[in-house]
Amino acid sequence: MKTYGIIGTGAIGGYCAVKLHQAGFAVHCLMGSDYSHVKQHGLTLISKEEKITVPVNAYDDFRKMPVCDVILIALKTTSNLILKEVLSRFSQSTIVVLQNGIGSEQEIAEFFPADKIVGGSPMIKVTKETPGTITHYGLNSIELAQYFPDDYKKVITSQVQALAKNFKKAGIESIATEHLPTIRWKKLTGNIPISGLSVVLDAYTQELIADPQIFALLCAMTEEVIAAAKACGADIADSFYQFRLGVLESFKDMPKNYSSMKVDFDAKKPLELHAIYENAINLAKQHRFSMPLTEMLYQQLQFLNKNNLDKVH
Amino acid sequence: MKTYGIIGTGAIGGYCAVKLHQAGFAVHCLMGSDYSHVKQHGLTLISKEEKITVPVNAYDDFRKMPVCDVILIALKTTSNLILKEVLSRFSQSTIVVLQNGIGSEQEIAEFFPADKIVGGSPMIKVTKETPGTITHYGLNSIELAQYFPDDYKKVITSQVQALAKNFKKAGIESIATEHLPTIRWKKLTGNIPISGLSVVLDAYTQELIADPQIFALLCAMTEEVIAAAKACGADIADSFYQFRLGVLESFKDMPKNYSSMKVDFDAKKPLELHAIYENAINLAKQHRFSMPLTEMLYQQLQFLNKNNLDKVH
Repeated sequence: MKTYGIIGTGAIGGYCAVKLHQAGFAVHCLMGSDYSHVKQHGLTLISKEEKITVPVNAYDDFRKMPVCDVILIALKTTSNLILKEVLSRFSQSTIVVLQNGIGSEQEIAEFFPADKIVGGSPMIKVTKETPGTITHYGLNSIELAQYFPDDYKKVITSQVQALAKNFKKAGIESIATEHLPTIRWKKLTGNIPISGLSVVLDAYTQELIADPQIFALLCAMTEEVIAAAKACGADIADSFYQFRLGVLESFKDMPKNYSSMKVDFDAKKPLELHAIYENAINLAKQHRFSMPLTEMLYQQLQFLNKNNLDKVH
Repeated sequence: MKTYGIIGTGAIGGYCAVKLHQAGFAVHCLMGSDYSHVKQHGLTLISKEEKITVPVNAYDDFRKMPVCDVILIALKTTSNLILKEVLSRFSQSTIVVLQNGIGSEQEIAEFFPADKIVGGSPMIKVTKETPGTITHYGLNSIELAQYFPDDYKKVITSQVQALAKNFKKAGIESIATEHLPTIRWKKLTGNIPISGLSVVLDAYTQELIADPQIFALLCAMTEEVIAAAKACGADIADSFYQFRLGVLESFKDMPKNYSSMKVDFDAKKPLELHAIYENAINLAKQHRFSMPLTEMLYQQLQFLNKNNLDKVH
């Protein structure tokens, strides 16, 4: 696992690219609109401590990329339709899906060998505000787990251990875990309530938290997602709800900020509703669990998303 | 029951004023901002068939009004705080609450004799677009029922029969019924889903109906409100859900229009959330029934309403 290909070099993909490059790995980045800028100027990472610029091997076409040991998928899930074609070039690679939501690995497994699919849940606060420049605000870890077609299988595989080791070498605190649904659902307990409500209510996270009735709704939705997660076999401790409330409370002390879904909405980009909402609701249904609040929020969001995209044309 | 006082002479109040005046009843109207216009020009009612202008006894202060046999309360519920003072002048009158939502009669009964309180649910499509001018688009009936502190009591009282008779004389098809909660809840099954979603999603009724997922949400909310109604003792036939779906479907063929709550929202007026949502949710809770979708919509609406009113100042 010496060479890394990165599909979708946005904030998370770019952050990993810089860190892996610095640790001595060969990194090859498939870029979108930032291609010519990055080809010429490299990638820049700004953190509290430093500002680093590194040259990267940038590509505007996956066919020009070399075969890599590992492919990090850091695209928005709304672009996942291209993966079938792109990954046909990397059929020997291990792929790591660093995406929001749940269910992408299962969709990828329809055209890619399941035993080479790993899921990763980054907890890294980064944004890309201008082409090729990534700003890191805090947190620096990735939870990794093997994808298994059987939702209940729990094993830490050797490739997951090897990946975690490499991320650690690159200075990203990585954790090899045994159960992908658990890490996916844990992230959803944070994403599902706040992301959608910030769009529907056109509000900063801090405004949502400060309103007592919306805070009650956030709590009710968090409970619903945790219950769905458990119904789907995720390992979630009883203390996790209190942990989530603590995270919500902690937003109060931060400067006003929008969820990334709200940022996408305001930029007239398609929202990741399939991976974050629809897949979660359907998975829960398969486990005979219904998520009425999440489903209502999803129904509202798909309406707003559709109208928002219509307005672009 | 020969003299009528009308508190809140908007679209519904003004419509009743014109019709009762034409039938020979003495009508006294407490007006808000339309006072000087109506004092000078009278009230005008435009319908498909005709345009009528009638003089009315207009007042800008309830203290100047004569004591009347019947007081029609056609204020927005958001102004109900004034009723305690206003109704102290009319303690001998029968009052008819022609308002949206549920629970106003119970609130009024805290300072007014319960046996003189009647509730009415108008099904009359009217708007007031300019001062003193009311346009009638269709439907022309009012369901009436006596208020009883006991939610389960069902009696058609003689005063309800007399009121219905007078409305009929005035050309408004009126129905004396035995159970106020039933007529209130029936109206709510239509109001709760559409009114709120049109505000939250910033959409015409027709856009909501045309979206398959929002249509599914409207259906789910209609079912929820019907179930709450039944839990609260309302008499609702099994066929009523199909009737409601038919009403929803019928909107498709109408020109694009906003719910009256959306019209209020766009005019930066306070929304009738207390009467339409909060009271319904609390009544259901008292009957050990929870309304998760309605509650979520209410939580969203109170947030938007608060921010909307903040922007006025």
